[in-house]
Amino acid sequence: TYNPIFDEDLSWDDATWILTSSFIILTMQTGFGLLESGCVSLKNEVNIMMKNVVDIVFGGLTYWLFGFGLSFGKDYSNPFIAFGWFALDANIQVMGPIFSTFLFQLSFATTATTIVSGAMAERCNFRAYCLFSLVNTVVYCIPAGWIWGSHGFLKHLGAIDIGGSGAVHLIGGSSALVAAWMLGPRLGRYENGTDPLPMGSPTNALLGLFMLWWGWLAFSSGSVFGVSGHKWKYSARASVTTINASFGGGFMGLVYSYVRTKGKFDILDLISGVLGSLVSVTGGCALFKPWEAVVIGFIGGAFACFGIPFFDWLRIDDPVGAISVHGLAAFWGVLAIGLFADGENLLNLTKGNSGLFKGGGFYLLGVQFLAAICFATWSITVTFCLLWSINKFIPIRMEAHEELLGADLVEHGIRRPGVGVSRALSALGSH
Amino acid sequence: TYNPIFDEDLSWDDATWILTSSFIILTMQTGFGLLESGCVSLKNEVNIMMKNVVDIVFGGLTYWLFGFGLSFGKDYSNPFIAFGWFALDANIQVMGPIFSTFLFQLSFATTATTIVSGAMAERCNFRAYCLFSLVNTVVYCIPAGWIWGSHGFLKHLGAIDIGGSGAVHLIGGSSALVAAWMLGPRLGRYENGTDPLPMGSPTNALLGLFMLWWGWLAFSSGSVFGVSGHKWKYSARASVTTINASFGGGFMGLVYSYVRTKGKFDILDLISGVLGSLVSVTGGCALFKPWEAVVIGFIGGAFACFGIPFFDWLRIDDPVGAISVHGLAAFWGVLAIGLFADGENLLNLTKGNSGLFKGGGFYLLGVQFLAAICFATWSITVTFCLLWSINKFIPIRMEAHEELLGADLVEHGIRRPGVGVSRALSALGSH
Amino acid sequence: TYNPIFDEDLSWDDATWILTSSFIILTMQTGFGLLESGCVSLKNEVNIMMKNVVDIVFGGLTYWLFGFGLSFGKDYSNPFIAFGWFALDANIQVMGPIFSTFLFQLSFATTATTIVSGAMAERCNFRAYCLFSLVNTVVYCIPAGWIWGSHGFLKHLGAIDIGGSGAVHLIGGSSALVAAWMLGPRLGRYENGTDPLPMGSPTNALLGLFMLWWGWLAFSSGSVFGVSGHKWKYSARASVTTINASFGGGFMGLVYSYVRTKGKFDILDLISGVLGSLVSVTGGCALFKPWEAVVIGFIGGAFACFGIPFFDWLRIDDPVGAISVHGLAAFWGVLAIGLFADGENLLNLTKGNSGLFKGGGFYLLGVQFLAAICFATWSITVTFCLLWSINKFIPIRMEAHEELLGADLVEHGIRRPGVGVSRALSALGSH
Repeated sequence: TYNPIFDEDLSWDDATWILTSSFIILTMQTGFGLLESGCVSLKNEVNIMMKNVVDIVFGGLTYWLFGFGLSFGKDYSNPFIAFGWFALDANIQVMGPIFSTFLFQLSFATTATTIVSGAMAERCNFRAYCLFSLVNTVVYCIPAGWIWGSHGFLKHLGAIDIGGSGAVHLIGGSSALVAAWMLGPRLGRYENGTDPLPMGSPTNALLGLFMLWWGWLAFSSGSVFGVSGHKWKYSARASVTTINASFGGGFMGLVYSYVRTKGKFDILDLISGVLGSLVSVTGGCALFKPWEAVVIGFIGGAFACFGIPFFDWLRIDDPVGAISVHGLAAFWGVLAIGLFADGENLLNLTKGNSGLFKGGGFYLLGVQFLAAICFATWSITVTFCLLWSINKFIPIRMEAHEELLGADLVEHGIRRPGVGVSRALSALGSH
Repeated sequence: TYNPIFDEDLSWDDATWILTSSFIILTMQTGFGLLESGCVSLKNEVNIMMKNVVDIVFGGLTYWLFGFGLSFGKDYSNPFIAFGWFALDANIQVMGPIFSTFLFQLSFATTATTIVSGAMAERCNFRAYCLFSLVNTVVYCIPAGWIWGSHGFLKHLGAIDIGGSGAVHLIGGSSALVAAWMLGPRLGRYENGTDPLPMGSPTNALLGLFMLWWGWLAFSSGSVFGVSGHKWKYSARASVTTINASFGGGFMGLVYSYVRTKGKFDILDLISGVLGSLVSVTGGCALFKPWEAVVIGFIGGAFACFGIPFFDWLRIDDPVGAISVHGLAAFWGVLAIGLFADGENLLNLTKGNSGLFKGGGFYLLGVQFLAAICFATWSITVTFCLLWSINKFIPIRMEAHEELLGADLVEHGIRRPGVGVSRALSALGSH
Repeated sequence: TYNPIFDEDLSWDDATWILTSSFIILTMQTGFGLLESGCVSLKNEVNIMMKNVVDIVFGGLTYWLFGFGLSFGKDYSNPFIAFGWFALDANIQVMGPIFSTFLFQLSFATTATTIVSGAMAERCNFRAYCLFSLVNTVVYCIPAGWIWGSHGFLKHLGAIDIGGSGAVHLIGGSSALVAAWMLGPRLGRYENGTDPLPMGSPTNALLGLFMLWWGWLAFSSGSVFGVSGHKWKYSARASVTTINASFGGGFMGLVYSYVRTKGKFDILDLISGVLGSLVSVTGGCALFKPWEAVVIGFIGGAFACFGIPFFDWLRIDDPVGAISVHGLAAFWGVLAIGLFADGENLLNLTKGNSGLFKGGGFYLLGVQFLAAICFATWSITVTFCLLWSINKFIPIRMEAHEELLGADLVEHGIRRPGVGVSRALSALGSH
């Protein structure tokens, strides 16, 4: 999101773009829900969707209460945090830009939160997760202020993250890493090696990929934050680089899968390749050339694809691959800006800096590296503290028998024929 | 929908907003289809989707033929009805605003119709339903003219209903009440008490919730009917109040479910809480403060959640909770405008009136109460007359053996393994 | 798509419309995926979705590499082909219109490609399909230049195809005809007559219909290519005629099904009726009156409905009806412009010509007929050559045992309980 908030010149054309983008970005929640519920086993399919609902309800509520204010508030700020606009309201004269921006930022905040839910799937207690949703906002909103708030130290250094490779995906992916590690693997996950478990519903997972794919066009191009003046040109470029990156990432996924499985095309490999490419391109979407986007997406897809077996080798169990897709590919995406960003521009998006490959030297690359380190360190530290504290009140890990029965039955009272729950229930009853 | 039709100043920026909103609102049909088919038993899953298709085909056709004309026609009007624009056409000079408005209103009309299909699920004859779809337009289009047509008596009194809490949802919910009551409960519905029956596909129901949720942002903010001048500021506010209300309603649903089920989180409770909040906020979406929206949504969610067991206690069988979610929550939503509406504004949306809590006294509240009574009474009366008449030609209730076999098999020839239809067919064959 | 590329006056309002339309049109890929995967048997449900993914990845990549350039390139052109803009890039001064147009055209190109995948379902080798996706771009991009490129001979003759009835759907449908004929019918397809096989997931197929339906509004109205000046009026009309056509087509589908099945309402008949109507109206969407659109859609629906048993009678096996829905209905749609197109206009869309029924004589009808013949002939010839060549490298037909096992297992390693694959595997193993 390029434009500092409350640019007085935000026009209704810009607002149309921003609001419409927000509406489309929110459809990505449907995509995440479908993808995650398609990846997990059938006995947890509904539970993961419910976690996505809770992410909006609780995550949205707290973002309105304090998240937006900690990112962009105007009452007080230092380079690391802002205050103000708690329980956001605005008078009718100025509500246009404030409310448009809030909705857009909200759609980003809920995305960052939802990323984590996938990595916690199939073994996280639902009430503990609700509590985490309430406080998780703080993981996202503080570093979003660093890079997008007018007070932020990363912004002052010239760091760039237009569509949130760093502030959304690297934050979410790092958070996912800590959460997956703290929860430990699902029962029996690695008893027969580290091969991926079968997906409950591959069709739903692919549907989720589709919805995320198209939504991402708004995620990237909406981040240019308007269409007036020269902005529409960058919005158009951001759309093209986003879709182009996915060609590279999808190609990577197909090749990776063909080699890995000796001739088959695995669903999750293709999904990871495409999503990894989208994660990696979105940060600098408006600053790349179309062919560079293909390359960046190809490499981003590789990070996602190769990362998944790596974390399984570490016995960090991430049922949907969120750490690799959002974390690793985002790390690459933040750095790619420092390599490829084009300094010449009409909007001063890069403040005169250029990437290493464009003759800008190492300054921008260094700043981007610093930003990535800051995002990851913050997210890992704070997520650990939050989950550690929550675990004192409500154990974050489900009990073993609940996990075996599945969260759909245990948390939501859903009996599904053919999933073997009835038999498992009898077996447990006889103890 | 704020703007009287054929404001000569409707710009292409406004048209972009209105048309894009219409496209998004139509995606709510997908949401209703998913939600309803997820709630019913598997043997009726396809049938309810087909009813949603028919709602568009027949409901849309009649809305074009006479519905739009009875709401907004310019040939003749009195405070209760308008005539003109039947089989709508327009010459190229004036077609811009006329066609934009028609498409937007059409998306509202089909929503009102679709609400009823859920309450009639699993026992309504398909041909009777087709006939009802053809004439149902009249239930919606007359009262829409009362509140939105320049001739309408409710409009003249100053009643407000920006996004259709009354004209869409209260109308639809009241219609649903009559339809569910006239059809009677499903066979065996209350033989083991009034607990909800299991949902056929909770995942699909949650997907439907998601699609309705994001579509609702366009439903509310599109109703401001443009972005030019000051309109975009109200469109932005309408978006924020809509999403904020859902935080309140979702929170209500979670708490309600936790208490009711002693520690579980029921899918339908959460869905009802969120949808009830959206129904209740949409009427006054552009006139509330964000915190008020949370409160209004919380209460709207409560109406939806508590209404469902109430109607079951009355033995009125509403498989998806349409009466409570759309009827009760909408009644509250229409009144909430009379309590919370903010009189100060730039668009004269309230004609100088304010809600009770904003120092406007009881006038607006009274008018809103009158509007709610008029909507409900009209809808109940006309729906009764229509279904009573249709029942003379084609019995609206399926025959008992058809209902047991399920409408998917009987009406659409679909055999589904594992739903027990084959066995039921053999049993029937042996009689 | 009305506007020749690189109209210097393309404004940011137009770009907003074009980009937003592109985003919505891409959601039609989700619709095609759902519809196709709902129509095929369960053992191929994932495979067909994967083919839709590959259509984007490979089809999009080649469209960027050379497809767009062969349609609209500026380096060299004759009336049949253009060159230039290979591996498209643009400098920041002119990138606005170029990138907006590219993304819009890309969304059309991927639609044309995806149409074919349905007709090849359940028996096409996945690697052969990937290869076909890479080269299929050439089938679409050359004739798109004939009708939309400033060099195109059909454009010079005055042929009209605003939303791509001809250039997208007739091309795709003709391609589907050749592909289905070359692959031959599925094993055992016609052993028990020509009745349609049961659909794997009718609910998903109906969901796909819904997503295509709403997406089509952007497909048609986006093709007016802007909103500034008088364009918004035609965008609004295109939306209304599109939805109105679907009322006619849906009505046709219901009546056809009722008669054919003696009282039942078949899912695929209704889907074909609605989609056939949308295919037929989209070419002249901005030029018809609303009532004409109902008639055109009714007839388009009839072509789609009656075509399906006709091709089955010819033993050309088209699992989703793509040849009839996209090919036949499109042929009618291209001709309908020559009958109904309204000459009077503000944008000079018809260059002064009118349809036969509007007093324009036979000129436009003749030109439209010529266009249809050119599109179909080209698509049939080139698709044949491509598939014939691919077949030399990788046999396009799956091997018999693979087809019996299903592509989900064979190509993607998915074992699905209850689809009978395990038993089939054992049977094969014992040979």
